[in-house]
Amino acid sequence: MATAGKVITCKGAVSWEPNKPLSMEEVEVAPPKAKEVRIKIIASGICHSDLLINEGRFKAVTYPVILGHEGAGIVESVGEGVESVKPGDKVIPLCIPQCGSCRCCKSPDSNFCIQNDLGRFSGLLSDNTSRFTCKGKMIHNFLSTSTFIEYTVVEEWAVAKIDDAAPLNRACLIGCAFATGYGSAINIAKVKPGSCCVIFGLGGIGLSVVIGCKSAGAARIIGIDINPNKFAKAKELGATEFYNPKDFAKPIQEVIAEKTDGGADYSFECVGNTDVMNIALQSCHYGFGVCVVIGAVSSEAMLSFNQMSLLSGRTVKGAFLGGFKTKDSFPKLVSDYMAEKFNLDGLVSHTLPFEKVNDGFDLLISGKSIRTILTF
Amino acid sequence: MATAGKVITCKGAVSWEPNKPLSMEEVEVAPPKAKEVRIKIIASGICHSDLLINEGRFKAVTYPVILGHEGAGIVESVGEGVESVKPGDKVIPLCIPQCGSCRCCKSPDSNFCIQNDLGRFSGLLSDNTSRFTCKGKMIHNFLSTSTFIEYTVVEEWAVAKIDDAAPLNRACLIGCAFATGYGSAINIAKVKPGSCCVIFGLGGIGLSVVIGCKSAGAARIIGIDINPNKFAKAKELGATEFYNPKDFAKPIQEVIAEKTDGGADYSFECVGNTDVMNIALQSCHYGFGVCVVIGAVSSEAMLSFNQMSLLSGRTVKGAFLGGFKTKDSFPKLVSDYMAEKFNLDGLVSHTLPFEKVNDGFDLLISGKSIRTILTF
Repeated sequence: MATAGKVITCKGAVSWEPNKPLSMEEVEVAPPKAKEVRIKIIASGICHSDLLINEGRFKAVTYPVILGHEGAGIVESVGEGVESVKPGDKVIPLCIPQCGSCRCCKSPDSNFCIQNDLGRFSGLLSDNTSRFTCKGKMIHNFLSTSTFIEYTVVEEWAVAKIDDAAPLNRACLIGCAFATGYGSAINIAKVKPGSCCVIFGLGGIGLSVVIGCKSAGAARIIGIDINPNKFAKAKELGATEFYNPKDFAKPIQEVIAEKTDGGADYSFECVGNTDVMNIALQSCHYGFGVCVVIGAVSSEAMLSFNQMSLLSGRTVKGAFLGGFKTKDSFPKLVSDYMAEKFNLDGLVSHTLPFEKVNDGFDLLISGKSIRTILTF
Repeated sequence: MATAGKVITCKGAVSWEPNKPLSMEEVEVAPPKAKEVRIKIIASGICHSDLLINEGRFKAVTYPVILGHEGAGIVESVGEGVESVKPGDKVIPLCIPQCGSCRCCKSPDSNFCIQNDLGRFSGLLSDNTSRFTCKGKMIHNFLSTSTFIEYTVVEEWAVAKIDDAAPLNRACLIGCAFATGYGSAINIAKVKPGSCCVIFGLGGIGLSVVIGCKSAGAARIIGIDINPNKFAKAKELGATEFYNPKDFAKPIQEVIAEKTDGGADYSFECVGNTDVMNIALQSCHYGFGVCVVIGAVSSEAMLSFNQMSLLSGRTVKGAFLGGFKTKDSFPKLVSDYMAEKFNLDGLVSHTLPFEKVNDGFDLLISGKSIRTILTF
């Protein structure tokens, strides 16, 4: 490759500080060091978590930083010792890595590799530096990925090779929203055939939960949203019923209890609101109900439940990326998509050129978008 | 039977109002109606929940009431249509019934039969009356059982026939403490062989969790208690390590994290304290840790967790009676006990005649007892 070993200067959307629009800058991207991979980003979704970070809700995030973690691209060059990908490969960067050797990677029950930078938010690669420089300053990495830039550098353990024929403007969704929602139904709740599921929030994650519940054979898939415009898409993807909490005088959990013989088998919170999480818990049936909390809120957000709602036999659980071990599973999910086992088009409401990333944030804030895909 | 169809006048410990010692009274026990069973109680454990109720922590409980729910006895007479037990059978009354036909009974994942009176605390049998009268007043039933009395009447769905040779002063423990702790390890956490478990509180429930973890093949069984006198018994039953939070300057969850490579696989809260529940959650490893909350606190107690502690891949769950479907499982647990698959002697610290029930409460409050068994 002509560029291998050289610094690439390219466009990147830099967050210099919280609560400011991203700033389109010329960023120098250093070549990958040993066990690192430089990727030309082709598409990136805008996730609600990028918005939360940009709003400063996760205190540990270090600025300046390049956000974006739901991307797909093509390997531009690789550092010494990289074996799993080569230049020209189509890839998804992994916002939760899979190092393969930590306690979580070795556990069949976890995808939360200890190399993740979620919570720690160091914004650094393994050698405690980043590969991004702008105006003489080091710019931090985000969640081992940073996809709001034309070229990014990630660790080999944070990238998965996917099918050469995959359309990257859809495959990118497997890097976060789709895996998160779909996996929450399949891997975390382990939805059983014939069951009753209730999903709070019908954005990109919620719709992916709908797809997962349908794929698992749920008999009833109940969508809850205060925006009735979201119902048509949910129905198209498999939801069977819809309720808007604003249409009822009584609390929505009571409405759900009445319509489901006491409560759902599974409930999913995809809004990112601790009150809704509590409502979701109350919306699943005592004795066996499983509530999966998916929406992130902030680093300090507290969830409060009446203790008896757990003692009476409910389960509350959470996971990032729907529990998928990323490096192993994402290529398979892409293959499943290529085999038309599910359709990702329904999750995409807007496509914008990368330069319009701030417009994409505005669409998200206004509630007008499901997922906006940036193309490069 | 000579007494069949007649009222029995016998000794019963009546709670006339909360926060008073139980009052030993002459109670008239009406004969069983259709589908009901009158039982001569032979032994009853004193459970921490009886104490909580007597302290008025569950607002819905209706007084006067006869507490006690961890009993064993012999069927004295049966009402019309009773088929599963007959006079002379040894039985355990079921504080969570198993009607066999409700949504919970039909679910393989639940034991929380909707006929339970936990939470509703009606204190009444199906016909909205009780069989107890004292000084002209109706005395309420408690948790479908009421075992602090010489004779009680329960629904057929709230009694299980057990082995004729079972010693009732041990079998009674299967009616609550043992099933709760043992089942929390086996059925709720589903402890895997080779795993690391941490147990907060080494009373009757905590020790039963120890037995369950050992039986499941856990490699490390870590006991936590602020009373070091509890450690010897826990070791005898299978615990491998002990820590007293008072011995450390740093929070106990940090001590546990250091000693367990980041956290346990499973944690169990057997104290009945919402702060300890939060500590228990933090004591299991992110990504896969399962925290089982067992100890009851009060009807209003709220549990607060940082949302990220769940999103990072932990599970919190609870259940009554360790998830055992009572009518099906208790006879099998008694058989397992008879076959020496586990030993219940270790859970019993004191045996008192029924008349000294208030002394038993005092032993519990003082922390001097594990389980006190009342004999009749």
